Amino acid sequence: MDKNIINLTINTDLTRQGLTGFIQSEMTKTGYKRAVVGLSGGIDSALSCTLAAEALGPENVLAVRMPYRTSSQASLDDAQKVIDATGVQSLTIEITKMADSLIETFPDMDKIRRGNIMARCRMIVLYDQSVVFKGLVLGTGNKTEILLGYTTLFGDSACALNPIGDLYKTQVRQLSRALGVPAAVIDKPPSADLWAGQTDEDELGYTYAEVDKLLYLLVDKKHSSDECVDAGFPADFVTAVIERMRRNQFKSALPPVARLG
Amino acid sequence: MDKNIINLTINTDLTRQGLTGFIQSEMTKTGYKRAVVGLSGGIDSALSCTLAAEALGPENVLAVRMPYRTSSQASLDDAQKVIDATGVQSLTIEITKMADSLIETFPDMDKIRRGNIMARCRMIVLYDQSVVFKGLVLGTGNKTEILLGYTTLFGDSACALNPIGDLYKTQVRQLSRALGVPAAVIDKPPSADLWAGQTDEDELGYTYAEVDKLLYLLVDKKHSSDECVDAGFPADFVTAVIERMRRNQFKSALPPVARLG
Repeated sequence: MDKNIINLTINTDLTRQGLTGFIQSEMTKTGYKRAVVGLSGGIDSALSCTLAAEALGPENVLAVRMPYRTSSQASLDDAQKVIDATGVQSLTIEITKMADSLIETFPDMDKIRRGNIMARCRMIVLYDQSVVFKGLVLGTGNKTEILLGYTTLFGDSACALNPIGDLYKTQVRQLSRALGVPAAVIDKPPSADLWAGQTDEDELGYTYAEVDKLLYLLVDKKHSSDECVDAGFPADFVTAVIERMRRNQFKSALPPVARLG
Repeated sequence: MDKNIINLTINTDLTRQGLTGFIQSEMTKTGYKRAVVGLSGGIDSALSCTLAAEALGPENVLAVRMPYRTSSQASLDDAQKVIDATGVQSLTIEITKMADSLIETFPDMDKIRRGNIMARCRMIVLYDQSVVFKGLVLGTGNKTEILLGYTTLFGDSACALNPIGDLYKTQVRQLSRALGVPAAVIDKPPSADLWAGQTDEDELGYTYAEVDKLLYLLVDKKHSSDECVDAGFPADFVTAVIERMRRNQFKSALPPVARLG
């Protein structure tokens, strides 16, 4: 297969129906009626929030903004646009003091450690609010970042159910457009906003448009790395992505427990 | 089967061999040589730490004590006894400021929410230290608490591998005695020490000796609730335990992800 003919376009009507149906049926199964979602200002959490508002009614969705002192004002503003567009309930809880109380204990801490602490502090706030709101925590991880392990374990990956985890990043964009997610959120470069100037594609070293197609061949079509190279992907790119998936596989699995004979 | 003839005694030599072997083989698989464990002063983390010290050498194990302002001095002292007995490396990192920065934002927060925040702050510290020490985070949850869901999701249950998760609490006690865990740790009433005077058995409403036998019939022997009552367990006890397991099952599973057609 030539990589240029890979087409990840989805039927947005069917997908929208399927994903709102998923949220509703998971709620019914577990006896919940409400959902809580951390709203970063990025497209993934915007889509999750929008789907939940449609599935459950906006009054049954709580969006929580959790800025850190280095978070950009634009992220906060973009999250507000999603709150306004969907009509969901909202709260803003700063994580600065919480994160800094640990970060400042270790002055030489690098930005990866700091980013993981921030992501996990947000998990704590979100799970705490889920008790107050009596809602389930919605996942906001897309298929691309889950496969690449581009996520903090027990941080942004922590959730009770994930409506968007089978959508590649490029599909998240397509569905977000169809669902009317604010354009400012869709059009900006994806970033975890853990430090100033961070963008996903810089950090990963490749674009979502490219890696989504490669992941589709590797994971959905179960192609070998040689077949992916034959399809037109550079060999070092294929190797790097496979190695990244392998290294991060533990994030998508339950930890091994010793079994007695 | 009469409940009085249920015998959960294990062969401690074989179990010790099996569990240290498990730790070693998981390290080999993942390319790690070291482990990090949160040491609470309780028996479960003491056993996990002792097994790791034996499997990897004490110099390759980092025990982290993470007291909160309400943690008892006795817990801290008992953890020190385990550090001294095993010879592992150790660190003490207070979680008070971190936890309180969120707790104090909500003055009416109940003790369950506070306890969950503490458990999750400890996860953050432990995972952060695992990066510095280049070690895997060891689980400290026993089979009883895992089955009952008597644990904080993404808190004390968070780990990379769990050597003691197939041991009932009474078996943890038996193996701890055989491995020379300090008597003070073994003999005190089990407690998460999340608030003063908390004990597991008060909170659960039954003793480990009783519930371990019931869980053995229900889970290992796949007996029905009627068969458990026939074996001599009170019907309301059986119902309560089954309901507790059902309600907390989500803690032992990966979150559902919506699948596209």
